[in-house]
Amino acid sequence: MQTTITKPRSVFDELESEVRSYCRSFPTVFNRAKGYKLWDVHGREYIDFFAGAGALNYGHNNSRLQERLVDYIAADGVTHSLDMSTKAKENFLERFDEIILKPRGMRYKIMFPGPTGTNAVESALKLARKVTKRDTIICFTNAFHGMTMGSLSVTGNSSKRKGAGVALHNSVFMPYDQFLGQEVNTVEYLQHFLDDNSSGVDLPAAIILETVQGEGGINVASFKWLKGVEEVCRQNNIPLIVDDIQVGCGRTGTFFSFEPAGIKPDIVCLSKSISGYGLPMALTLIKPELDIWSPGEHNGTFRGNNLAFITAAEALSYWEDNQLSSQIKEKGETVSSFLHEMVEEHPEIAGEVRGRGLMQGIACGVPGLAELICSVAFEKGLIMETSGSNSEVCKVMPPLIIDNSGLKQGLNIFKDSIKDPQIKNHIKKNPRLKSKKKAPSFRALAKLK
Amino acid sequence: MQTTITKPRSVFDELESEVRSYCRSFPTVFNRAKGYKLWDVHGREYIDFFAGAGALNYGHNNSRLQERLVDYIAADGVTHSLDMSTKAKENFLERFDEIILKPRGMRYKIMFPGPTGTNAVESALKLARKVTKRDTIICFTNAFHGMTMGSLSVTGNSSKRKGAGVALHNSVFMPYDQFLGQEVNTVEYLQHFLDDNSSGVDLPAAIILETVQGEGGINVASFKWLKGVEEVCRQNNIPLIVDDIQVGCGRTGTFFSFEPAGIKPDIVCLSKSISGYGLPMALTLIKPELDIWSPGEHNGTFRGNNLAFITAAEALSYWEDNQLSSQIKEKGETVSSFLHEMVEEHPEIAGEVRGRGLMQGIACGVPGLAELICSVAFEKGLIMETSGSNSEVCKVMPPLIIDNSGLKQGLNIFKDSIKDPQIKNHIKKNPRLKSKKKAPSFRALAKLK
Amino acid sequence: MQTTITKPRSVFDELESEVRSYCRSFPTVFNRAKGYKLWDVHGREYIDFFAGAGALNYGHNNSRLQERLVDYIAADGVTHSLDMSTKAKENFLERFDEIILKPRGMRYKIMFPGPTGTNAVESALKLARKVTKRDTIICFTNAFHGMTMGSLSVTGNSSKRKGAGVALHNSVFMPYDQFLGQEVNTVEYLQHFLDDNSSGVDLPAAIILETVQGEGGINVASFKWLKGVEEVCRQNNIPLIVDDIQVGCGRTGTFFSFEPAGIKPDIVCLSKSISGYGLPMALTLIKPELDIWSPGEHNGTFRGNNLAFITAAEALSYWEDNQLSSQIKEKGETVSSFLHEMVEEHPEIAGEVRGRGLMQGIACGVPGLAELICSVAFEKGLIMETSGSNSEVCKVMPPLIIDNSGLKQGLNIFKDSIKDPQIKNHIKKNPRLKSKKKAPSFRALAKLK
Amino acid sequence: MQTTITKPRSVFDELESEVRSYCRSFPTVFNRAKGYKLWDVHGREYIDFFAGAGALNYGHNNSRLQERLVDYIAADGVTHSLDMSTKAKENFLERFDEIILKPRGMRYKIMFPGPTGTNAVESALKLARKVTKRDTIICFTNAFHGMTMGSLSVTGNSSKRKGAGVALHNSVFMPYDQFLGQEVNTVEYLQHFLDDNSSGVDLPAAIILETVQGEGGINVASFKWLKGVEEVCRQNNIPLIVDDIQVGCGRTGTFFSFEPAGIKPDIVCLSKSISGYGLPMALTLIKPELDIWSPGEHNGTFRGNNLAFITAAEALSYWEDNQLSSQIKEKGETVSSFLHEMVEEHPEIAGEVRGRGLMQGIACGVPGLAELICSVAFEKGLIMETSGSNSEVCKVMPPLIIDNSGLKQGLNIFKDSIKDPQIKNHIKKNPRLKSKKKAPSFRALAKLK
Repeated sequence: MQTTITKPRSVFDELESEVRSYCRSFPTVFNRAKGYKLWDVHGREYIDFFAGAGALNYGHNNSRLQERLVDYIAADGVTHSLDMSTKAKENFLERFDEIILKPRGMRYKIMFPGPTGTNAVESALKLARKVTKRDTIICFTNAFHGMTMGSLSVTGNSSKRKGAGVALHNSVFMPYDQFLGQEVNTVEYLQHFLDDNSSGVDLPAAIILETVQGEGGINVASFKWLKGVEEVCRQNNIPLIVDDIQVGCGRTGTFFSFEPAGIKPDIVCLSKSISGYGLPMALTLIKPELDIWSPGEHNGTFRGNNLAFITAAEALSYWEDNQLSSQIKEKGETVSSFLHEMVEEHPEIAGEVRGRGLMQGIACGVPGLAELICSVAFEKGLIMETSGSNSEVCKVMPPLIIDNSGLKQGLNIFKDSIKDPQIKNHIKKNPRLKSKKKAPSFRALAKLK
Repeated sequence: MQTTITKPRSVFDELESEVRSYCRSFPTVFNRAKGYKLWDVHGREYIDFFAGAGALNYGHNNSRLQERLVDYIAADGVTHSLDMSTKAKENFLERFDEIILKPRGMRYKIMFPGPTGTNAVESALKLARKVTKRDTIICFTNAFHGMTMGSLSVTGNSSKRKGAGVALHNSVFMPYDQFLGQEVNTVEYLQHFLDDNSSGVDLPAAIILETVQGEGGINVASFKWLKGVEEVCRQNNIPLIVDDIQVGCGRTGTFFSFEPAGIKPDIVCLSKSISGYGLPMALTLIKPELDIWSPGEHNGTFRGNNLAFITAAEALSYWEDNQLSSQIKEKGETVSSFLHEMVEEHPEIAGEVRGRGLMQGIACGVPGLAELICSVAFEKGLIMETSGSNSEVCKVMPPLIIDNSGLKQGLNIFKDSIKDPQIKNHIKKNPRLKSKKKAPSFRALAKLK
Repeated sequence: MQTTITKPRSVFDELESEVRSYCRSFPTVFNRAKGYKLWDVHGREYIDFFAGAGALNYGHNNSRLQERLVDYIAADGVTHSLDMSTKAKENFLERFDEIILKPRGMRYKIMFPGPTGTNAVESALKLARKVTKRDTIICFTNAFHGMTMGSLSVTGNSSKRKGAGVALHNSVFMPYDQFLGQEVNTVEYLQHFLDDNSSGVDLPAAIILETVQGEGGINVASFKWLKGVEEVCRQNNIPLIVDDIQVGCGRTGTFFSFEPAGIKPDIVCLSKSISGYGLPMALTLIKPELDIWSPGEHNGTFRGNNLAFITAAEALSYWEDNQLSSQIKEKGETVSSFLHEMVEEHPEIAGEVRGRGLMQGIACGVPGLAELICSVAFEKGLIMETSGSNSEVCKVMPPLIIDNSGLKQGLNIFKDSIKDPQIKNHIKKNPRLKSKKKAPSFRALAKLK
Repeated sequence: MQTTITKPRSVFDELESEVRSYCRSFPTVFNRAKGYKLWDVHGREYIDFFAGAGALNYGHNNSRLQERLVDYIAADGVTHSLDMSTKAKENFLERFDEIILKPRGMRYKIMFPGPTGTNAVESALKLARKVTKRDTIICFTNAFHGMTMGSLSVTGNSSKRKGAGVALHNSVFMPYDQFLGQEVNTVEYLQHFLDDNSSGVDLPAAIILETVQGEGGINVASFKWLKGVEEVCRQNNIPLIVDDIQVGCGRTGTFFSFEPAGIKPDIVCLSKSISGYGLPMALTLIKPELDIWSPGEHNGTFRGNNLAFITAAEALSYWEDNQLSSQIKEKGETVSSFLHEMVEEHPEIAGEVRGRGLMQGIACGVPGLAELICSVAFEKGLIMETSGSNSEVCKVMPPLIIDNSGLKQGLNIFKDSIKDPQIKNHIKKNPRLKSKKKAPSFRALAKLK
């Protein structure tokens, strides 16, 4: 394996907007990819613990899907169809119903809202408002739902919000599970606001949540909390929207992340890995009784990305039995054990293991450390990103189909990175961050009075 | 050619959301497509005067592009890369600069805002607000810019706007060219509002416009008007955004629709046919001095759709010489002559020919007529959609690469459709619409005082 | 009469906020006032052509009202009653109905929305939105409706708007009569926007207008225009709100300013001179069928200013016959003739006479001139303010009860002020402003194409 | 004392808007008032425990003020002056500085924002936004700040909010002290939201609060909590606005309600009793360094209500020594003891005593009970209103100058009302309300997990 990092050729610096971002963290030019590996133009190989930010759960250029895709293109299958009916879409719909919905006893109407996650979220918010004739959306601290104006209004990150350039309206942020420490039941808090008709928080058009906040720092909601929020929704006749864009499609071990919690969202947003091949595609799943759209009331040019329908239909094969689920569970445990060991062996990083399934990570209690670890890891051949309000979490998110050898290889690079002298230097120079997640409990605070 | 129309199989009715729309106008299941033709599952052939709402300027499964695409996929080229650097992106950037920007003396930084037009628009609005620290966007009557909350706020269509479910803010609609009849210079109107500091119209963060309003009814702005708006922008230090999503990429005869008008927008939005193959892709072109984004300030999962970069780079070959431009011009004239003849021969439809290049159409002065004509045409094997506030325009928008034979064939079906007995019946039963575009002139009104 | 101007004692500079304004234009400390005269602490006398910005139509300390007021206070009449019922309110209601509403064939429910004009406007906007379930208010260029957030959103002045510190929403500004020059019928313009369901201008909750824009520059709407706007309202089922706060209560010669136009607003806002004595009071008149308020849905502490009810009831005596109306008409003609003569004699000020009844003025075509004239006039013993986007209008607005001698005296000071050497100097140094109101007609512009 | 209640004459039903409210609770026509008593047109006498919702702290027609007022009017003192300088205003400014500000070591610039509380709040919000260039205002559950659009956006009551007819923006509601029960420190909660830059709560332009929420249900913030909020403001550079409109001017025993808490607000809103006589008047007090208004940036017709300046200046005499303060304290204790006894003697009302100084009340745990008690009390000659989200609090708020005899008389009527058979009947028929203020503690909830 080569050790020199090639900076991207100046064409990106010259021609691409300053907004470019990941290319700064991973400074090379990639060329080829397969499964859990990428290669750059110099032939250097990288283990992928990033998985297209969750869009590549089945790996790069998954062969089963690749074959179908090439055949379809070569046969002049319809590529682009807006929302006209095509054979490819029909097949996807049937398979999604047969393999995903029916076995889970779910009934949803399927909407193609445009090919990206933010389209799914925007359409979900619109529909909830149309159904309820209310304005406000209740969302949660550290939520990430997208970058277009509607989705951005329910996204917590302040620098992204500022990017809007205007004040964002019609959303109310409530504390996510454990936002106020482990002892505080934030559902109760939410309930108080809705119970009191002078709280200033109007009855919302919907509550939207992620079951695990990937961008927000791998914050995992307990099933109890999720049930609690669902109960609040039912009592107040509020539609519940689950944004399963990053943690759906198997990331946590089940197709939908919310299955083990036993909740039944009214609207579900899917994207990222739904095409299975990294192709732009998104779905909005809608309980039939809420499907009161007028034809074309929400539209878009790329709702009919048939290449994605082809790979998506094939990717569903992974869900015809329990094999993948079991593997995710096992590998999730492997990752979890490994990370816990790392954290114990390296108390200097003030680490906290977080996550569920193959969405895991370590929150580092030293400012700037997680970014540095990822940077060192990249030099050593591992692609891994940070998340969290302050980029304080190293996020382990390999393709679900990674084999044990690849997984170990990646984890070892992660561990080696922590041992790098750069890391020790950094820790010496930077004081430990007081962890947000270990806030003094309210009980303790009450004593201080 | 078969004459029976096959209704889509019930899978769409059962499983797809009520929001589905074009499948209602074109009630069959499509299977295969090539060039300017589609075939449904019954083998029935259709001429395509729709071109994916402008996303298929180079035709379905364009062989030059198809070959590159299949080769790239088969070679395990990177498919999905977020905004990491890839060889495919690098090649696209270089070719776009060499073939499009440099020969036109243009300098723009290129942003990949996400793979759809609305992403390009949202990013443009954000950036303009960031640059100017102002809130309002001035947009125009009958504008269509997208369905996410930011783009929707600058879109005129009231049923789409209502779909938002909340009031849309921070936009001011000004009259587009000829909105008030041919004699009224609406630039002057706009100027008045900006000149008077008590007009209630605050200095905007940007003016956004389409040079031809495709969805709005094929309303063509004169070059004089476009220059006038640009002049207003310059005088008031307002960034000018051109949304060239539908009418760019050659639709009107030049790569950018605004080239013959001689204006120099500060930001340009491209999508639809930029990938050349109907794959989701979009660009935001930004004058370098406005490119003040922070890294990652606007992001999205599918910014790096490398399959699209591959086809997009190849599609640019069409612009290496003037051949395509010339052909569009010629075919545009063919269409124009044909449509004018039709209108003259059929005064009963109260038709008005509109358009530029290969974005043309007939506005029908009888309510509901255009929709019926398109429906009849579909039965006869032509795919053609309507546009306009009241779906009053039959829109002729074939792939740019259509050959003369195909063009004639399609136009003849259009003409045959008008002669259909259903049309005559409809006209008898429906009174002529008082045309919006032929409003009593203000001069005439002044006399009435 | 003294000639030295005494600057206000430093207590104002030291203790009062920088927001203070009129005290800067009229730099003395006033002490006593009667009829159309004020005296400052130095005994200097001033003719009042300002009339409390329209709040003192019946003059300062009008003796008839003063007597009633003192008697009521001395008898321990209820002063403050929120919206409880009092004898004083009852008497006012009865007299308002008998003297104002019934003789005019009007039926309105009377709301006491709080004691200021902006309260009346805010309540009107709320009610219109409640009635129609729509968001937007259509208002007009150069409108002034108040400084609280709702009223401010329909006010045109950009510096006042900026004072909000946030973007103002839910209002659309349309061109007022003659905003685009004399030949353009701006009602037609408004109609176009409402007719086209893709204009981006949603059907509004109300249209609000002033029949004469006092603050906006004494812009007088023609009766034809007012009828036109009313017709638009009727056709589209839009409530019409007339803000008669400054020009109602007789200012233009009839009790309501809109009477001679023959329109029947759905909601009327009154304040300023309704108490007759300069005491804070406001009314919102509501067509009975729109009076769907829930009890207390809009409230406020000072809705029951009984001292104002006492003087207001007495002030209505002026409307028991036509005497005052006739006098206003006569005096209005006196003023008009005088101003026209002035403008003719002094072409150097590029003046234009504007107004109706006793709301008149001269718009000066030289930047900064009107302010200087008012400043000179103040030195000569006349209180007169400017209005308009650029403070370009000298506003002649004496108490309606001014006698002919006082009127002449004031007008002569005005004329003398124009002849002052400071004025000549100013004109020499400042180029003439291109008048907004004499914009090139659209016809002319069309020729330029 | 008479026992028949006279319904208001039909003139109110016929002519006054449905929005009228207190006249429904107190169904008679009042005529005369003095000190802590009112009389209706039938000569029936009422004890006033309402005090004009806090506007009559010095009683009705206070003789000291009355005399000054009549003299001023009779002497043709300037009544209405906009924001010109007058002798009456000068005197008020000097006395306010000498008697109120200087002895407390306070430095504030004084703004006359218009004559009502909501004007003071609107101006405070505007200025905070101008100073900070931020949008959002943080406010608290159960807050009441006014009915114009800006103030309403920071008011919690949902029925008042709905009255707006549009979504209210730019405000975030945080939990007031004890909103989540006694054990939860809600300052900590607020702090969490501001500390986490992905909480979705943007750094606000201001925090606005009432030290005791009068309309919200007599919720008393602890001094510790107030200090905590102030500390959050200081740490984050957020201006602190105290709305002292209802509880200022001595209501809780000190001139400003926040004095004993030891906090130093950046902006203070005063109105209601500032004129001392029930006349419309309001002040916005601004720390000099924040007084960056442009002249006239916020204005209004009735900023110069000189009659109010006259009575306000005289009312300040009450604050030249500690006598009134001491009396309020004593009477407050009298009320407190009496109410606590009542609550103990009548467990059936599930009462909770709340308040500070002469702003006290009993929250009743039986739905609808408080309203019924006030209604019965009115029949017995006592005027007392309810407050709280569900009108669950009987509010004891007499004029501060009430003598002991009047106070006892009123309290006895209150007690007698509770013993009325109507009350017993009501309690039998209505189940006890689960008190909002005694919510299960979070600790208890944690156990339930």
